[in-house]
Parts: sequence; structure tokens; C-alpha cells
Amino acid sequence: MQTVRVAAASRTYPIHIGRGLLARADLIAGAIPQRRVAVVTNDIVAPIYLEPLAAALEAAGVACVRIVVPDGEDHKDWATLDRVIDQLLAHRCDRHTAIVALGGGVVGDLAGFAAATYQRGVPFVQVPTTLLAQVDSSVGGKTAINHPRGKNMVGAFYQPHLVLADMDTLATLPERELRAGLAEVIKHGAIGDAALFAWLEANLERLAARDAEALAHVVKRSVEIKAGIVARDERETAERALLNFGHTFGHAIETGLGYGTWLHGEAVAAGMVMAAGLSVRLGMLDAPSAARLRRLIERAGLPVAGPALSTERYLELMSVDKKAEGGRLRFILLERLGSAAIRGDVGPDALRATLEAAVTA
Amino acid sequence: MQTVRVAAASRTYPIHIGRGLLARADLIAGAIPQRRVAVVTNDIVAPIYLEPLAAALEAAGVACVRIVVPDGEDHKDWATLDRVIDQLLAHRCDRHTAIVALGGGVVGDLAGFAAATYQRGVPFVQVPTTLLAQVDSSVGGKTAINHPRGKNMVGAFYQPHLVLADMDTLATLPERELRAGLAEVIKHGAIGDAALFAWLEANLERLAARDAEALAHVVKRSVEIKAGIVARDERETAERALLNFGHTFGHAIETGLGYGTWLHGEAVAAGMVMAAGLSVRLGMLDAPSAARLRRLIERAGLPVAGPALSTERYLELMSVDKKAEGGRLRFILLERLGSAAIRGDVGPDALRATLEAAVTA
Repeated sequence: MQTVRVAAASRTYPIHIGRGLLARADLIAGAIPQRRVAVVTNDIVAPIYLEPLAAALEAAGVACVRIVVPDGEDHKDWATLDRVIDQLLAHRCDRHTAIVALGGGVVGDLAGFAAATYQRGVPFVQVPTTLLAQVDSSVGGKTAINHPRGKNMVGAFYQPHLVLADMDTLATLPERELRAGLAEVIKHGAIGDAALFAWLEANLERLAARDAEALAHVVKRSVEIKAGIVARDERETAERALLNFGHTFGHAIETGLGYGTWLHGEAVAAGMVMAAGLSVRLGMLDAPSAARLRRLIERAGLPVAGPALSTERYLELMSVDKKAEGGRLRFILLERLGSAAIRGDVGPDALRATLEAAVTA
Repeated sequence: MQTVRVAAASRTYPIHIGRGLLARADLIAGAIPQRRVAVVTNDIVAPIYLEPLAAALEAAGVACVRIVVPDGEDHKDWATLDRVIDQLLAHRCDRHTAIVALGGGVVGDLAGFAAATYQRGVPFVQVPTTLLAQVDSSVGGKTAINHPRGKNMVGAFYQPHLVLADMDTLATLPERELRAGLAEVIKHGAIGDAALFAWLEANLERLAARDAEALAHVVKRSVEIKAGIVARDERETAERALLNFGHTFGHAIETGLGYGTWLHGEAVAAGMVMAAGLSVRLGMLDAPSAARLRRLIERAGLPVAGPALSTERYLELMSVDKKAEGGRLRFILLERLGSAAIRGDVGPDALRATLEAAVTA
């Protein structure tokens, strides 16, 4: 087991990475104030991992309420959150009952927002079971639900008390979700670590084959890069926005198609190709670097072009994105592989040309 | 204008108290990052105070989105919050748009929770227009919505950037709401300031007659007492619970009757009499002090007994209250007028006897 420590302004907490961690109820029990948890998971993860985790907790003397929600991004909404809240109240969970998110990014965002808001905040533990959640969404304290008008529009910054990333849970992850998780790993390399990017170019097949050591390596590096940024800018007033590389385009894709049609990582993958294309168009990035990024994304089995929405529709979808400031769009663009910058002065012509070039017919 | 400064762990901010403050758009403009606000108010307050406030803001160059929700505690729910969020999105409010709560405690709690969660948090200004909101709910950062199973069950600690308490808005406050606000003023005296309590005994009629100087005095003293407690314990891990004097019983009354049947202050008034009775029964408080509290509450035109729910129903309603810890009820009890303590060891007999004695037939 390896441990990365996140030192956010509002809370410092450990991320443990390794195998067999679902059985380590001692790690959870040591991080929460009372011996009672509510595990929130979905109906895909529950049959595989809920009872092993709950049994370990109960054997360690931690009482365990089980709350199972439907799988999928289209259930990251108020109706599902209300079901969770209702279950917490029905089981008389008090403000010292910890909420444990067992699942992928949707479960983590939803259960995290429940933890942030139930009785104005209860302790929170993340047990991410997808690669995307392990390398990205379980770290840094962003929680939210979606609104029909936009993704993650209602939420909170709320740091977990502990993250347990168990590599063994990746063994059952569907192929498509593994690939979607790789998109965020590639993103971390592209924005912050040229060595990680090169390592991915050399070792992509080991990850696709689910080599546990290779997976642990990219989880650890991703988490270190993200933890460093979150420590300096928890509430995304500046640097943290770099983590949104590919996301302005990506969120437009997800909202435009309806949540869940493309996986988040798939939308981000196409979004990164679009953002790199825009970077080249603005003279910030050289074309060979953009081509390397596109090639790595393609080798990972991820989309390199957005779905065929009209340019006007893309522009409309992007303008309600949270990254719009005072009515003006901000983009995260690449300066080179391993270094990104925030730009708020992108002209409409370069944006339109990028959208027209980077969308599948 | 007088100013009290709240130094909470998460944010320090001023509370301005005085007359004519709705016209002081300069105070709001100076506290927010961009010249754009969304004013959230209800359909009772809007016809009186929305346009004066909005006109002052717009004259000062601050753009103003107007969001009007239905009046009443039974609208402090997800459906209404969702309407607010929807309006914010429809007007393309970004994360720098400040939300201004113009109204009483319900508007403040609802708009505050919207500010805490819209795009994971936007700047927030409280402009309380009821005595209860001015002396209590606008200060300290508690925001929430209700759940059918319990009051304020979903919420956040989220401090405003500024509070403007304009005494002139109390001129139009219905009599019943003025009296309800006095309940929280009496509470502040009872738990923390014997001099304030004695001042209220001597000057109650000035408050009932809406003497602006007398009102400003009790607002300032209430806010000072509350700000001191919040500065030491923002998230209610200990001392802040003292502010819940009368609220364990009071919340049971509100939930048991359905939100809005009794005003919050009315329920707290009866709850304080019950809590004082329990204090006497446990030998903590002398009977004459309890009688003084009861008499002041009665003189303020507030209820001194709970509604006729069964003892079992009261116990059931109290057990889901947030103040229950690990299944055990905690009570805020009086040691003397001006001093309160938290007790977690109240036996069932004393509680039942109190409930049976303090409920109207």
C-alpha cells in the first residue's frame, strides 16, 4: 500500500493506493468519529463489492447502513439524492455517521454532495472502484449533482476524510470504463507531467491489460499531480482550473447528447483533442505535440472527435458551463506536453474553426 | 449605522445595523467581486422592498436579476430551491454573481443554500427584513432546506460576505412576526446576557411599539452574542449548540404541526418554556427564574405551552432532530438567566413529566 497525502485548505487527508484495501476496515474505522457508516453504492457495484466491504466493517465493529442507488450519470440528480437523504433519515443517521461512497465518479459526486449537505455536513470516505474515480473524481473534494440545464450545477467543495483506492476493484471494470479512466490519466500527463505522458506512450498496453503495478503507478502519479494543485487552490480560483483541460468542450458534449450517452472520460478525450487543436490554432502549441496527444488518445481506444452537433449548439452549450466568467469563455490550453495555461481571450473565429474541424460528420 | 464584525473560521464579514440601508448599494457593491447580483425574495416582500433595493443597485452600476419565490416555511424545500437554480441558470449567472437574500429566515436559509451550492458556491449577501432574521438566522452561516422527515435536514454552513439589517424594513412587519422575532431576542438574553434579559423586561413595550432605537439595540446585542459564539464554534461541535435553547422542543412542534402552522419563533418560545421547566425539574434552575422567563414570553404575546400532541409523538419527533447524538437526545438547559449548558444525560422520566406539564390540553 502506498499513501499520498492531500493538504487542502479545508482538510488534510490520506489517499491509500494498493490491493486488498476493501478488507481494510481498520483504515476506515480509524478515520471516522463514530463506529457507524452509511455505504452509498449503485446497483452494478453492490452485488460485487458491497457485502465484502460491509462485512469487513461489521467485523471491525462498525455498524453499516446500505444505500443502493441506480447506476448512471442520468441518476446524478436531485431525485436520487433525495432518496439517499430519505434513507439516512429513515435509519436515524446522525451528524457523526460517516457516508462511504463505494463506486465510480457518479456515486462519489452524489454521495459526496449528500455528505456535504446532510445535516449540514457529515464525515465522508471515498472508496472509488473505477479508474476514473481513482485518478480523478475521488480526489479534491468536488461534489455535485446535475441540472437539466448543465452538468454539476449544484454542488459543494467538500473534502473526504479518507480515500481508499483498491486496485483489485479494477479487475471487474468494463473495458469501456477502463479506457474512459485513461483519458483523465492522459490529461494529468498533458497538463502537468511530460514524464508521465511519455511513460503512458511506452506502457499503454500494460494498462489496457490491467497490470496492477502499472495501474497503481498511474493512480499514484495522477493523484500526486492533482493533490499538488488542490493544495494550492482548493476552490478553483486560479490554478485548479488547469484540471479542466478538455472539459469545456467535454461538458458541452455530455450535455448536448444527454448525460450518460458518452462516458465523461470519452467526452474529455474528444475535448482534449479539440483543446489541443485550438492551442495549435492560436500558436501556443506545436502541431507535432497535438498529434502525439491525439495518437495516445486514439491508442487508448478513446474518441478523437466530438459528436456531430452544430457549431452554434456547441457554442450555446459551452456558454452555460461554469468555466464561463462574466459571460466570457475561458479555455485551458496546452503550451507543450506537460504544461497548460488558462486563456480568457480566445476569439470566436479560432473557436468556430476548431469546432468545425474537430467534429465527426 | 452600527457595525458588528463576525470572525468565523471560514470567513470574516460585517453586519451593518441602521436605517435606510436598503438604499446603500455602495455597501453591497463594495463586498462582491463583480457588478452582478441575483436578488432572491418572496412574493410578500417583493412588492415592498425589491424595487427600491434593485433600483439602488442598478443606479450604482450593479446588474440585478430578480427571483421571487412563494412565501412560507412550507416552500423552504427542494422544489423551490430548484426554481431558484433554474432561474440562475436561465439568466446565465456565473460563479461570481452574488446572491442577495431579501426577506426573512426562510428566504435567507433557502437563498443561502442556493449560494452555497450553485456552481459549488457563489458570493452571498443577507438583507434580512424580519426581526427574527436580523437577530438570528441571517448571522452565522447556517443555510438549509427542509425534508418531509425533518426541518433543516439538508443544508450547509456558508457564511455571507455581508449582512445589511435595515431597521426601516421592520415598519411593515406583521405584528405576529415581530413577536416571533422577539422569541430569539429573549433566547439570547436567557442563554448569554442577564443584562439584556433585564433590559427586555423593562423595555418590552418600546419594542412592541417598534421604537427604531430600541429595535437597533436588541438587534446589535443579539448579533454580538451570536457572533461571539459563532467565532468560537462555527460548525457547532460544542458551544454553538447553546443557541439551540428551546429548539429541540421547538423543532418537534414545527414538524409535528407541519411547517408554517406555528412560526419558528412561536415554537421556540413554547420550547424555551419547556426547556426551562426541564431545567427546574432537574434541579439546575430555580423556579422563580423559570417563571420570569415564562412571564416575559407571555408578555411578548408568545405561546408558553406546546400544542396538544401526545407525549409519544413529541418523543418520536425529537429523536430525529439533528441534536440527537448517537441515538441520545441532548438538551440545552438553563443554569440561571444569562447562562446555559448542554446536557446529554436527561432521563426519560423528567422528559415525559416536562412534556405532560407543558402542553396545552
